[in-house]
Amino acid sequence: MNYKDVFEVTKFNPEKMAKINLFETSNFFCDVYCLEPGQQQKAHAHEKEDKLYYVLSGRGEFMIGDETRELSEHKIVFAEAGKVHGVRNTSDGRLTLLVFMTPNPNIK
Amino acid sequence: MNYKDVFEVTKFNPEKMAKINLFETSNFFCDVYCLEPGQQQKAHAHEKEDKLYYVLSGRGEFMIGDETRELSEHKIVFAEAGKVHGVRNTSDGRLTLLVFMTPNPNIK
Repeated sequence: MNYKDVFEVTKFNPEKMAKINLFETSNFFCDVYCLEPGQQQKAHAHEKEDKLYYVLSGRGEFMIGDETRELSEHKIVFAEAGKVHGVRNTSDGRLTLLVFMTPNPNIK
Repeated sequence: MNYKDVFEVTKFNPEKMAKINLFETSNFFCDVYCLEPGQQQKAHAHEKEDKLYYVLSGRGEFMIGDETRELSEHKIVFAEAGKVHGVRNTSDGRLTLLVFMTPNPNIK
Protein backbone atom coordinates (compact mmCIF):
# COMPACT_ATOMS: atom_id res chain seq x y z
CA MET A 1 0.00 0.00 0.00
CA ASN A 2 1.34 3.38 -0.99
CA TYR A 3 1.16 5.35 2.26
CA LYS A 4 3.42 7.65 4.29
CA ASP A 5 3.60 9.17 7.76
CA VAL A 6 3.94 12.90 7.14
CA PHE A 7 6.08 13.43 10.26
CA GLU A 8 8.44 10.57 9.42
CA VAL A 9 9.43 12.16 6.09
CA THR A 10 10.10 15.68 7.40
CA LYS A 11 13.61 17.05 7.06
CA PHE A 12 14.86 20.58 7.49
CA ASN A 13 17.54 22.39 5.55
CA PRO A 14 19.33 25.26 7.30
CA GLU A 15 19.82 26.96 3.90
CA LYS A 16 16.24 27.07 2.62
CA MET A 17 12.75 25.61 2.89
CA ALA A 18 12.82 21.85 2.24
CA LYS A 19 10.27 20.14 -0.05
CA ILE A 20 9.69 16.41 0.27
CA ASN A 21 7.54 14.78 -2.39
CA LEU A 22 5.05 12.17 -1.16
CA PHE A 23 3.09 11.29 -4.28
CA GLU A 24 2.60 12.55 -7.80
CA THR A 25 0.93 11.82 -11.11
CA SER A 26 0.16 14.12 -14.03
CA ASN A 27 -2.98 15.11 -12.07
CA PHE A 28 -1.23 16.42 -8.95
CA PHE A 29 1.72 16.47 -6.65
CA CYS A 30 1.58 16.21 -2.86
CA ASP A 31 4.59 17.45 -0.89
CA VAL A 32 5.57 18.19 2.69
CA TYR A 33 7.24 21.60 3.11
CA CYS A 34 9.52 22.13 6.11
CA LEU A 35 10.41 25.68 7.13
CA GLU A 36 12.81 26.73 9.84
CA PRO A 37 12.06 30.08 11.51
CA GLY A 38 12.55 32.86 8.95
CA GLN A 39 12.42 30.59 5.89
CA GLN A 40 9.87 31.20 3.17
CA GLN A 41 8.38 30.22 -0.15
CA LYS A 42 8.50 33.50 -2.02
CA ALA A 43 5.31 34.86 -3.49
CA HIS A 44 4.66 33.49 -6.96
CA ALA A 45 1.74 32.49 -9.17
CA HIS A 46 0.83 29.59 -11.45
CA GLU A 47 -1.30 30.27 -14.47
CA LYS A 48 -3.26 27.00 -14.45
CA GLU A 49 -2.48 25.20 -11.19
CA ASP A 50 -4.48 25.32 -7.97
CA LYS A 51 -2.60 24.92 -4.68
CA LEU A 52 -3.64 24.03 -1.13
CA TYR A 53 -1.49 24.46 1.98
CA TYR A 54 -2.49 22.51 5.11
CA VAL A 55 -0.64 23.39 8.33
CA LEU A 56 0.56 20.14 9.92
CA SER A 57 2.42 21.86 12.76
CA GLY A 58 3.63 25.29 13.78
CA ARG A 59 2.41 28.59 12.39
CA GLY A 60 3.34 30.96 9.60
CA GLU A 61 2.23 33.93 7.58
CA PHE A 62 0.41 33.15 4.35
CA MET A 63 -0.02 35.56 1.49
CA ILE A 64 -2.78 34.88 -1.02
CA GLY A 65 -3.56 37.61 -3.54
CA ASP A 66 -3.46 40.89 -1.62
CA GLU A 67 -4.22 39.32 1.79
CA THR A 68 -1.76 38.24 4.48
CA ARG A 69 -2.75 36.16 7.52
CA GLU A 70 -1.07 34.07 10.18
CA LEU A 71 -2.37 30.50 10.17
CA SER A 72 -1.58 27.66 12.56
CA GLU A 73 -2.14 23.91 12.90
CA HIS A 74 -5.27 22.44 11.27
CA LYS A 75 -5.85 25.40 8.94
CA ILE A 76 -6.03 24.79 5.20
CA VAL A 77 -5.78 27.64 2.70
CA PHE A 78 -6.54 27.73 -1.01
CA ALA A 79 -4.55 29.59 -3.68
CA GLU A 80 -6.56 29.38 -6.88
CA ALA A 81 -4.79 29.32 -10.26
CA GLY A 82 -3.55 32.77 -11.17
CA LYS A 83 -3.39 34.09 -7.58
CA VAL A 84 -0.07 35.22 -6.17
CA HIS A 85 0.73 33.14 -3.07
CA GLY A 86 3.54 32.47 -0.64
CA VAL A 87 4.33 31.55 2.95
CA ARG A 88 6.90 32.63 5.53
CA ASN A 89 7.69 31.09 8.89
CA THR A 90 7.36 34.16 11.07
CA SER A 91 7.27 32.08 14.29
CA ASP A 92 10.15 30.97 16.48
CA GLY A 93 9.39 27.26 15.91
CA ARG A 94 9.41 24.92 12.93
CA LEU A 95 6.58 25.01 10.40
CA THR A 96 5.48 21.93 8.45
CA LEU A 97 2.91 22.01 5.67
CA LEU A 98 1.12 19.45 3.55
CA VAL A 99 0.91 20.88 0.03
CA PHE A 100 -1.27 19.76 -2.82
CA MET A 101 -0.93 21.18 -6.34
CA THR A 102 -3.11 20.29 -9.30
CA PRO A 103 -2.54 19.63 -12.14
CA ASN A 104 1.16 18.76 -11.89
CA PRO A 105 3.27 21.17 -13.96
CA ASN A 106 6.27 18.80 -13.66
CA ILE A 107 4.54 15.91 -15.47
CA LYS A 108 2.61 16.63 -18.65
CA MET B 1 -8.54 34.74 2.31
CA ASN B 2 -10.12 31.40 1.50
CA TYR B 3 -9.11 29.22 4.45
CA LYS B 4 -10.78 26.76 6.83
CA ASP B 5 -10.06 25.01 10.12
CA VAL B 6 -10.59 21.33 9.37
CA PHE B 7 -11.84 20.58 12.90
CA GLU B 8 -14.31 23.46 12.91
CA VAL B 9 -16.16 22.07 9.87
CA THR B 10 -16.49 18.47 11.09
CA LYS B 11 -19.99 17.10 11.56
CA PHE B 12 -21.09 13.54 12.08
CA ASN B 13 -24.21 11.84 10.78
CA PRO B 14 -25.50 8.84 12.74
CA GLU B 15 -26.89 7.38 9.48
CA LYS B 16 -23.76 7.38 7.32
CA MET B 17 -20.31 8.84 6.75
CA ALA B 18 -20.53 12.65 6.39
CA LYS B 19 -18.66 14.52 3.64
CA ILE B 20 -17.97 18.25 4.03
CA ASN B 21 -16.59 20.06 1.02
CA LEU B 22 -13.85 22.61 1.75
CA PHE B 23 -12.75 23.71 -1.72
CA GLU B 24 -13.22 22.69 -5.33
CA THR B 25 -12.48 23.65 -8.90
CA SER B 26 -12.54 21.56 -12.07
CA ASN B 27 -9.00 20.46 -11.09
CA PHE B 28 -9.87 18.93 -7.71
CA PHE B 29 -12.09 18.71 -4.71
CA CYS B 30 -10.97 18.72 -1.09
CA ASP B 31 -13.36 17.32 1.51
CA VAL B 32 -13.40 16.34 5.17
CA TYR B 33 -14.92 12.89 5.77
CA CYS B 34 -16.33 12.13 9.24
CA LEU B 35 -16.94 8.51 10.20
CA GLU B 36 -18.56 7.28 13.37
CA PRO B 37 -17.44 3.83 14.55
CA GLY B 38 -18.58 1.20 12.04
CA GLN B 39 -19.26 3.70 9.22
CA GLN B 40 -17.52 3.28 5.87
CA GLN B 41 -16.94 4.50 2.37
CA LYS B 42 -17.58 1.36 0.38
CA ALA B 43 -14.89 0.12 -1.96
CA HIS B 44 -15.16 1.71 -5.39
CA ALA B 45 -12.92 2.90 -8.21
CA HIS B 46 -12.63 5.95 -10.46
CA GLU B 47 -11.39 5.50 -13.98
CA LYS B 48 -9.45 8.77 -14.24
CA GLU B 49 -9.33 10.34 -10.78
CA ASP B 50 -6.55 10.02 -8.21
CA LYS B 51 -7.49 10.18 -4.52
CA LEU B 52 -5.54 10.86 -1.32
CA TYR B 53 -6.81 10.19 2.20
CA TYR B 54 -5.01 11.94 5.09
CA VAL B 55 -5.95 10.83 8.61
CA LEU B 56 -6.67 13.94 10.68
CA SER B 57 -7.71 12.03 13.80
CA GLY B 58 -8.63 8.52 14.84
CA ARG B 59 -7.86 5.34 12.98
CA GLY B 60 -9.51 3.16 10.38
CA GLU B 61 -9.02 0.33 7.95
CA PHE B 62 -8.10 1.34 4.41
CA MET B 63 -8.46 -0.87 1.39
CA ILE B 64 -6.45 0.02 -1.71
CA GLY B 65 -6.37 -2.54 -4.51
CA ASP B 66 -5.99 -5.95 -2.87
CA GLU B 67 -4.37 -4.60 0.32
CA THR B 68 -6.01 -3.72 3.62
CA ARG B 69 -4.26 -1.85 6.42
CA GLU B 70 -5.14 0.06 9.57
CA LEU B 71 -3.85 3.62 9.46
CA SER B 72 -3.95 6.29 12.15
CA GLU B 73 -3.30 10.02 12.59
CA HIS B 74 -0.68 11.59 10.29
CA LYS B 75 -0.78 8.82 7.71
CA ILE B 76 -1.58 9.67 4.08
CA VAL B 77 -2.50 7.03 1.56
CA PHE B 78 -2.74 7.18 -2.21
CA ALA B 79 -5.39 5.49 -4.38
CA GLU B 80 -4.28 5.93 -7.98
CA ALA B 81 -6.88 6.19 -10.76
CA GLY B 82 -8.33 2.78 -11.55
CA LYS B 83 -7.58 1.25 -8.14
CA VAL B 84 -10.41 -0.01 -5.97
CA HIS B 85 -10.36 1.85 -2.65
CA GLY B 86 -12.43 2.33 0.48
CA VAL B 87 -12.23 3.02 4.19
CA ARG B 88 -14.04 1.73 7.29
CA ASN B 89 -13.92 3.03 10.83
CA THR B 90 -13.04 -0.19 12.65
CA SER B 91 -12.08 1.69 15.84
CA ASP B 92 -14.28 2.63 18.79
CA GLY B 93 -13.64 6.37 18.29
CA ARG B 94 -14.45 8.90 15.59
CA LEU B 95 -12.37 9.00 12.40
CA THR B 96 -11.81 12.22 10.44
CA LEU B 97 -10.07 12.35 7.07
CA LEU B 98 -8.88 15.07 4.73
CA VAL B 99 -9.57 13.89 1.19
CA PHE B 100 -8.26 15.21 -2.12
CA MET B 101 -9.54 14.01 -5.46
CA THR B 102 -8.19 15.11 -8.81
CA PRO B 103 -9.47 15.95 -11.35
CA ASN B 104 -12.95 16.77 -10.07
CA PRO B 105 -15.57 14.49 -11.65
CA ASN B 106 -18.36 16.82 -10.43
CA ILE B 107 -17.12 19.84 -12.43
CA LYS B 108 -16.11 19.34 -16.04
